[in-house]
Amino acid sequence: MGHLNIPVILGTGRLGRRSEAVARLAVDELKERGVVTSLIDVADFGLTATATPGAGTSLDVYREMVAAADGFIIVAPEYNHGYPGELKMLLDADYAGYGLKPVGVISVSAGLLGGVRMFEQLIPVLTALRLIVVPGVHVPEVEKALADGRFASASLQDVFSSMVDEVLRLAPELRAVRQRLEA
Amino acid sequence: MGHLNIPVILGTGRLGRRSEAVARLAVDELKERGVVTSLIDVADFGLTATATPGAGTSLDVYREMVAAADGFIIVAPEYNHGYPGELKMLLDADYAGYGLKPVGVISVSAGLLGGVRMFEQLIPVLTALRLIVVPGVHVPEVEKALADGRFASASLQDVFSSMVDEVLRLAPELRAVRQRLEA
Amino acid sequence: MGHLNIPVILGTGRLGRRSEAVARLAVDELKERGVVTSLIDVADFGLTATATPGAGTSLDVYREMVAAADGFIIVAPEYNHGYPGELKMLLDADYAGYGLKPVGVISVSAGLLGGVRMFEQLIPVLTALRLIVVPGVHVPEVEKALADGRFASASLQDVFSSMVDEVLRLAPELRAVRQRLEA
Amino acid sequence: MGHLNIPVILGTGRLGRRSEAVARLAVDELKERGVVTSLIDVADFGLTATATPGAGTSLDVYREMVAAADGFIIVAPEYNHGYPGELKMLLDADYAGYGLKPVGVISVSAGLLGGVRMFEQLIPVLTALRLIVVPGVHVPEVEKALADGRFASASLQDVFSSMVDEVLRLAPELRAVRQRLEA
Repeated sequence: MGHLNIPVILGTGRLGRRSEAVARLAVDELKERGVVTSLIDVADFGLTATATPGAGTSLDVYREMVAAADGFIIVAPEYNHGYPGELKMLLDADYAGYGLKPVGVISVSAGLLGGVRMFEQLIPVLTALRLIVVPGVHVPEVEKALADGRFASASLQDVFSSMVDEVLRLAPELRAVRQRLEA
Repeated sequence: MGHLNIPVILGTGRLGRRSEAVARLAVDELKERGVVTSLIDVADFGLTATATPGAGTSLDVYREMVAAADGFIIVAPEYNHGYPGELKMLLDADYAGYGLKPVGVISVSAGLLGGVRMFEQLIPVLTALRLIVVPGVHVPEVEKALADGRFASASLQDVFSSMVDEVLRLAPELRAVRQRLEA
Repeated sequence: MGHLNIPVILGTGRLGRRSEAVARLAVDELKERGVVTSLIDVADFGLTATATPGAGTSLDVYREMVAAADGFIIVAPEYNHGYPGELKMLLDADYAGYGLKPVGVISVSAGLLGGVRMFEQLIPVLTALRLIVVPGVHVPEVEKALADGRFASASLQDVFSSMVDEVLRLAPELRAVRQRLEA
Repeated sequence: MGHLNIPVILGTGRLGRRSEAVARLAVDELKERGVVTSLIDVADFGLTATATPGAGTSLDVYREMVAAADGFIIVAPEYNHGYPGELKMLLDADYAGYGLKPVGVISVSAGLLGGVRMFEQLIPVLTALRLIVVPGVHVPEVEKALADGRFASASLQDVFSSMVDEVLRLAPELRAVRQRLEA
């Protein structure tokens, strides 16, 4: 049935963003598992407050990547108990391409709660986009969370690995469902 | 005790934004009531996905406006059941200046639900910023909501007027509270 | 593959509840479409503030109904912008039985917003239970919403019908997915 | 101006509830600070799924306690990423008595995230009730969180103490505001 394509969306563009290393870890994990992946970096699309996400913009590339994907991993920090604005702008640039695809979210924070409030706010948005949200991964104290390209905490590494398992378990099933329903 | 200063934050920068007329209506209402106000337009701060909201940027102006305010009215549309990314980026540019000030939110949508889901998602964020959220105004079918600089619906005009009443009722009280607590 | 079984959960037990007529309408619609269904009435399980939802209680019946279901329709009003407590108590009585089944929610209110805030709060809970949430139906001004066993508004009837379509479209597909994954 | 009255609402009635010890700790702390307090136990009001919270019920007592209060502390666990149903039923039993009073929430969980998702879901409900929500306290791994009538973790004890400070700082100010506005 062909390889799975699961891009990783990095949802913060701020200078010094700690989430980037987590996103690269997720890309590496997917590659090790034989999945086609790429990093969709929110910083790469020229998003501005006045940009309208219409056709003929750099966001066409984003929409093509979404259309080609079988699922997603989103990595993003929590700002003031919500999601980063730039992540929302990027997600809002498409609508049709997300439907019935699985998404795993890795929330990131400098604090003890691992950005889980960001994830909770994202769930209704992702549901509005018809994505299927699997249980998330919440990374506390991100500045010391990684070691040697893995999560330093064995239990966090397990949670992450289970999340990837679940996305990869659902992705081919849901691809088959989409194909049958659209046939 | 001096005049009240209640700026109106316009929380979408998209071309053709319908929320702008609603924001201007709110500015006019505040002026008619003798309140000092101004339009804080999210489009005016050069926000981009890679901008870090640090000192020495155009966001210093925003932070000064927040510090000088006695309360806020926010006008914004709902996108995919959440808040506009550019509004979140602007709100995230300050932290200390919001505390114990009242905020009224006018949510806007082309649909029948008036953007209330946007408002519900915004409440935990505004609470994290220590703003005091009064009951909101939800504007459905925005393209036909205004007539002659007022809301075309008398009941919506009443809800709007009550929201402004409540912000203006709380603003001087909370200013006095802040002054006593900081003394 | 056998008939689909889609119970309707009535999520309020208050005397005079308007949601009951909406739930009965949903039961009738499912029956007309040849689906096996039943009304799971939150009032029927002896729920109290001190009841612990363990084995050997009337909630065993609920758990059996959940286990046997291929999907769900939930009908509930909004109270103070959240979900009814009794609905939450009932949902919390199971965990394992919901996974990868579709759920459509019909929110109900006496006001103009159709209880959509209740639905938004329910989405993260339903996602935690691993249900797959399809786009909801929001019934405003419930006291005049029904006529002759249908929604009085043709557009609301269409939205309701599309929601049922989507639950019935996904239910057999997801049943097959569950069977394959558990095999 | 008279003593402050800050009851503690215990928001779970389940057998073996760990939140009770946390609620008793909050009662003790308030008493040590010279505040009038009491434990409002959700288990004490005969709440059932079919009870309507009208006049002439045991909930009249609850409404009198709410009316007499200058603020609240709520202690409750997280169930399936939301609030306990019995807590919502109790909160829904009043409306008018909460307005412009401060509330501090202590969320409790057996897991690492301290029940913060419960708190995030509660914020829009408490805001609908016109309560003023101060920053919360999130108690992870509750079974080992307490020692000698305090939080075992010094940093958690500090967060708790700051939350109580903030409720007690705002309560007399907001009482004065209510009195002026109602005069």
